[in-house]
Amino acid sequence: MNFELTDDQLAFAQTAKHFAEQELAPFAAKWDKEHHFPIEAIQKAGELGFCGLYTPEDAGGLGLPRLDSSIIFEQLAMGCTTTTAMLTIHNMASWMIATWGQAEVKERWCDLLVTGQKLASYCLTEPGAGSDAAALQTTAKAEDGGYRLNGSKVFISGAGSTDVLVVMARTGGPGPAGVSAFAVPADADGVIYGKQEEKMGWNAQPTRMITFENVFLENTWRLGEEGQGFKMAMQGLDGGRINIATCSIGTAQQALNTARNYMQERKQFGKPLAAFQALQFKLADMATELVAARQMVRLAAFKLDNQDADRTTYCAMAKRFATDVGFKVCNDALQLHGGYGYIKEYPLERYVRDVRVHQILEGTNEIMRVIIGRRLIADEREIY
Amino acid sequence: MNFELTDDQLAFAQTAKHFAEQELAPFAAKWDKEHHFPIEAIQKAGELGFCGLYTPEDAGGLGLPRLDSSIIFEQLAMGCTTTTAMLTIHNMASWMIATWGQAEVKERWCDLLVTGQKLASYCLTEPGAGSDAAALQTTAKAEDGGYRLNGSKVFISGAGSTDVLVVMARTGGPGPAGVSAFAVPADADGVIYGKQEEKMGWNAQPTRMITFENVFLENTWRLGEEGQGFKMAMQGLDGGRINIATCSIGTAQQALNTARNYMQERKQFGKPLAAFQALQFKLADMATELVAARQMVRLAAFKLDNQDADRTTYCAMAKRFATDVGFKVCNDALQLHGGYGYIKEYPLERYVRDVRVHQILEGTNEIMRVIIGRRLIADEREIY
Amino acid sequence: MNFELTDDQLAFAQTAKHFAEQELAPFAAKWDKEHHFPIEAIQKAGELGFCGLYTPEDAGGLGLPRLDSSIIFEQLAMGCTTTTAMLTIHNMASWMIATWGQAEVKERWCDLLVTGQKLASYCLTEPGAGSDAAALQTTAKAEDGGYRLNGSKVFISGAGSTDVLVVMARTGGPGPAGVSAFAVPADADGVIYGKQEEKMGWNAQPTRMITFENVFLENTWRLGEEGQGFKMAMQGLDGGRINIATCSIGTAQQALNTARNYMQERKQFGKPLAAFQALQFKLADMATELVAARQMVRLAAFKLDNQDADRTTYCAMAKRFATDVGFKVCNDALQLHGGYGYIKEYPLERYVRDVRVHQILEGTNEIMRVIIGRRLIADEREIY
Amino acid sequence: MNFELTDDQLAFAQTAKHFAEQELAPFAAKWDKEHHFPIEAIQKAGELGFCGLYTPEDAGGLGLPRLDSSIIFEQLAMGCTTTTAMLTIHNMASWMIATWGQAEVKERWCDLLVTGQKLASYCLTEPGAGSDAAALQTTAKAEDGGYRLNGSKVFISGAGSTDVLVVMARTGGPGPAGVSAFAVPADADGVIYGKQEEKMGWNAQPTRMITFENVFLENTWRLGEEGQGFKMAMQGLDGGRINIATCSIGTAQQALNTARNYMQERKQFGKPLAAFQALQFKLADMATELVAARQMVRLAAFKLDNQDADRTTYCAMAKRFATDVGFKVCNDALQLHGGYGYIKEYPLERYVRDVRVHQILEGTNEIMRVIIGRRLIADEREIY
Repeated sequence: MNFELTDDQLAFAQTAKHFAEQELAPFAAKWDKEHHFPIEAIQKAGELGFCGLYTPEDAGGLGLPRLDSSIIFEQLAMGCTTTTAMLTIHNMASWMIATWGQAEVKERWCDLLVTGQKLASYCLTEPGAGSDAAALQTTAKAEDGGYRLNGSKVFISGAGSTDVLVVMARTGGPGPAGVSAFAVPADADGVIYGKQEEKMGWNAQPTRMITFENVFLENTWRLGEEGQGFKMAMQGLDGGRINIATCSIGTAQQALNTARNYMQERKQFGKPLAAFQALQFKLADMATELVAARQMVRLAAFKLDNQDADRTTYCAMAKRFATDVGFKVCNDALQLHGGYGYIKEYPLERYVRDVRVHQILEGTNEIMRVIIGRRLIADEREIY
Repeated sequence: MNFELTDDQLAFAQTAKHFAEQELAPFAAKWDKEHHFPIEAIQKAGELGFCGLYTPEDAGGLGLPRLDSSIIFEQLAMGCTTTTAMLTIHNMASWMIATWGQAEVKERWCDLLVTGQKLASYCLTEPGAGSDAAALQTTAKAEDGGYRLNGSKVFISGAGSTDVLVVMARTGGPGPAGVSAFAVPADADGVIYGKQEEKMGWNAQPTRMITFENVFLENTWRLGEEGQGFKMAMQGLDGGRINIATCSIGTAQQALNTARNYMQERKQFGKPLAAFQALQFKLADMATELVAARQMVRLAAFKLDNQDADRTTYCAMAKRFATDVGFKVCNDALQLHGGYGYIKEYPLERYVRDVRVHQILEGTNEIMRVIIGRRLIADEREIY
Repeated sequence: MNFELTDDQLAFAQTAKHFAEQELAPFAAKWDKEHHFPIEAIQKAGELGFCGLYTPEDAGGLGLPRLDSSIIFEQLAMGCTTTTAMLTIHNMASWMIATWGQAEVKERWCDLLVTGQKLASYCLTEPGAGSDAAALQTTAKAEDGGYRLNGSKVFISGAGSTDVLVVMARTGGPGPAGVSAFAVPADADGVIYGKQEEKMGWNAQPTRMITFENVFLENTWRLGEEGQGFKMAMQGLDGGRINIATCSIGTAQQALNTARNYMQERKQFGKPLAAFQALQFKLADMATELVAARQMVRLAAFKLDNQDADRTTYCAMAKRFATDVGFKVCNDALQLHGGYGYIKEYPLERYVRDVRVHQILEGTNEIMRVIIGRRLIADEREIY
Repeated sequence: MNFELTDDQLAFAQTAKHFAEQELAPFAAKWDKEHHFPIEAIQKAGELGFCGLYTPEDAGGLGLPRLDSSIIFEQLAMGCTTTTAMLTIHNMASWMIATWGQAEVKERWCDLLVTGQKLASYCLTEPGAGSDAAALQTTAKAEDGGYRLNGSKVFISGAGSTDVLVVMARTGGPGPAGVSAFAVPADADGVIYGKQEEKMGWNAQPTRMITFENVFLENTWRLGEEGQGFKMAMQGLDGGRINIATCSIGTAQQALNTARNYMQERKQFGKPLAAFQALQFKLADMATELVAARQMVRLAAFKLDNQDADRTTYCAMAKRFATDVGFKVCNDALQLHGGYGYIKEYPLERYVRDVRVHQILEGTNEIMRVIIGRRLIADEREIY
């Protein structure tokens, strides 16, 4: 075991930190307020390789391990939670296209995706199939030369502003085995975008419903084999869960730092808040749980990188734990700011609003417990 | 002991419930979105007596006990948290004017306040004096025929849209004994309003800083005696804490009802969410803690009505417990809605944003612990 | 609503408090250590009426409401958790005999039970039927002039030292409708007692398995009608849950008082523990939650006294909440004592061991959540 | 970063696991019941090197890193919490003697200690100096040829059955700088042992007060330099905290495994407990937090091995987090067993009683928060 970051990892982190401080942090509040999707910032991130961190090198990506990617995303999330979260979704979807795309599709998209010139969305959830994703009803019926896609997807991050959609649709019978995945150009005929959802947070990225009305899919757009789509979607999500957990960690670290500094500046009863024992204890617990959460995320990333048989369980544990801790730390940091935590001049309330959704998406934390519990019951080998 | 509501209390609750359903609930989302301060709705509430619930009858109020007032406010909060919270602040400030105002001031304001034709704000907190309210630095220096007021107050609910300000200012030396209270017309010369604060929630009421620049206060505007202001402010807050705790209870009950109904309608894995044991357990815990919180609030109100020697401690306990439970219940209800809890088509995210500030204002929950802890240490008699 | 105790309630509490201080508290540690069942103390309690608090007056009891009984038991539990818990079980079983017993049985037992000369046990749980009590397999097969009882009961409090057993047994088909209740003399032929269970706590009362081998039950021993036994058992448990929750409250109050006093005496870093803010906050939270728990118990008792349609739900809520809070408060009080909390010279570790079982018996807290959750789902009326 | 155990570490763990299963687990309940101190088992452990895991090789120890030692102790704790805890204290005290002992002392003791033929105790805490250890009042006054030791130490693990005592005593002025450390033969003239403390748990090791009455200490018994004793004691505790945290982890893993197996065997309502979703969720949370706690312990051990500048903070974090999680997991496992969790036929209640003290000793978890909070406030560099 070795808990030290390598020199490479430290260098990546440094680059990401610098980018976050220069290109994300100064604008995050404004993007939130104006509901602005900062495509320009994402493209700049792309110039540094952040749009294809774990996309294979042969597809133009950096081919980094998930662990290294997590270290980078964490720094980025310290600058802007929402933009980084979008970036992670783009990475996940791009990785799927690069991993399972047919030559034509890879050729068409990969270069553009890894540089951030084009962006990708991930389309799994449906109005009636959230936690029960395998019950999805969007259909891709085979016909001459391809498929015909019909159905609706909801809560699609980036929808309306991205260029390619990784869509899970039913090509076969009910259940997971009937699902296939496709890379669908976002401007294909019959792709209809709903209104921009008004959300509690994540305002720096658009979220929309997408309806597919008789969209024609070329055969070459299919990712992998027919019937493998659900499995791919889940493999994508293993990493997606690490990513979103990472976004919670980075944001929480930023919240902790902010609270720590505030405690030293703000005086009440003739001394800085930092001098009050009960507040010190609170800060100590926040830091402790955050360190634990970070280790969980990195452990899961390591397991995924090493294709550990229990990687899905570790990813679920990391996602559950880190997003819960992340929310708690941000919320406690808000409280430590008193009334100033509640107003938008300070970033705390935004942190709380942004990380709140991490407990819900990429599989709710309840679904994480289902995954973990099922594994524990099924197999007596210990999870370490 | 008797835990049954009286017929009067049930009737009050029924009236309030009807009002909340007709005049508040249908508009709450819109007011939040548009940052609209619904003065018109508050005035309608005034027609039913809700603007002077515990204002003495001789000042035109209903002269109800705090317990009855809490029962009413709870129902109103089920319709709109923010508007009800503003209403409770108005009630608190009006009660102070009616209780300690000199004849002239009472004559000028009370009739207008209890009917809601005019509204009142409560001005205690300052930029450098939040939790340590007794350190306030706003001064009211005696001069011929009155006082000259200088200083700043922050986080003033309703500021800019209300008509009279209950202001705590220093007329004597440092510490609580040097503070006096005044009823200051909101449009007096030298009263300057800051910009509307952008907040996480409570968007249906304006919050502003107020700066007093050489505002002349007539002697008759002073509430009670010189040097009694801090004591009055704290007495006002005993009730204010019950009120704000009540707003958390009402909102949480509404969130619980909403989640319960959603669990019956929403299906996943072929059955309603209500059929999943882990979600039932969550719902059970939410309901249990909410019942406990409600009892705490009513117990404190009863103690305040009976001028129990420990009323301040009970009010602090109720405020701490009920606002924490209220936030937790709303936040859990959001989670039970999955992605739908995060978007503004559903009210859950608004409930969470609105009740969040209840853990902070009228004394942060940390200050509540200071009050409770100090009492426990100082006096060995048990708190029951 | 009225949260004031009546003069009668205060007088009862005073008597109980005096008894607890004189007859229980000084011996509780010794009884725990020596695993001594203090029948003599229980009989003294009987002289004061504590063995038949809510047994109807026509059966010799005090016929008090459950609320008054809870107020009394709370004081007793401050003296000895385990002895009081046994006393409450005796009260519950005695009440069942007095309420549903046939004339002959009532005549034989009631006078002896309400005075504490004879003691009663409650026999529901079986090795294979714990949480799923309705699955019980002990049979009482009808035969000439009575029934023949066979089967086993586990975790029976007082077993081997009590005089009459209230036994739930199957006289009909499967499920709750096939169960009847009987009052069985503890020394009847074929009643076989297992070894005394070694337990974490509750050492001042024996717990044993009881096996019934062809025990002949006279018809007159049946309580109520055939097939009504499960319903009776559950009605008994409504009150039993209030009782056991009360034992947690009383113990926790004693733990809180002890910790509070210790914090004033024990000095570290040159000042009493009471001067450390983080410890004050801890104490404040303990007291707050304990007050909430007490109110929950009294609310439930009131609902039971008034035969509220939702009384079972309130009893379940009170049991869940108060036994969880009780454990937490005792455990926190132990922690506040540092190393001294862990040794038997101080009572804290005993409090923790004793109240731990309250989260399990009379229906585990998981079963409480099942009861509460089911009610919430089934009926949209709010629980208040 | 690398989260994989090395082959050596796996081999160590395997050896320890085997030993725990053969030599500890079968007897742990009996040792607890009979308050038996299993010196024989400790000596067998010594044969495998477990009595000098991180004692330097030149002193006969294995000279392993703390990380490897933790991996080994964790396996041992799965067999018997208390015996392993004693073993860790022996390792800590032995390491201090080996590290700072003068040649004569090392020669006399080290071989005997690393093989477990002789055992060591650690004597820091005093009746009036618990959390505030630097206030210790035991004095070692210099006199011809040595020192004269007077004072009392409390809560000394192994006292009365061990052979050498590492004693912190004041040779100089007040505060930490006046403290020196000594290796005192347990049978020296004037060493007086108090009665065996009766404790909640940890019954397989004796705990006693030790009084020193004019004990003569030879100069050569001093460890390190005069005035360095407190610093050594704290360095010893860095590792001691990892050790005790490890004992919580191992016990909790055992509790989790036991609960998991019970859930598969025990049936209620016609199906195994494992089939109930709310219980699965509970199990999932237990496992998740335990994995996080283990990582924290290993991270701290790694930091200590690498003499990281923040190693004391990491050790404090690991101790706080892992002992809290350990208690919670054991306590939840007890609850999952229902009534069977409360009786001594099952090991759960013992696990709970044993790990409870880990939250108190080697510095209470409150002191851990003091350490962590102080570091966070003092230095803006992030804890990672």
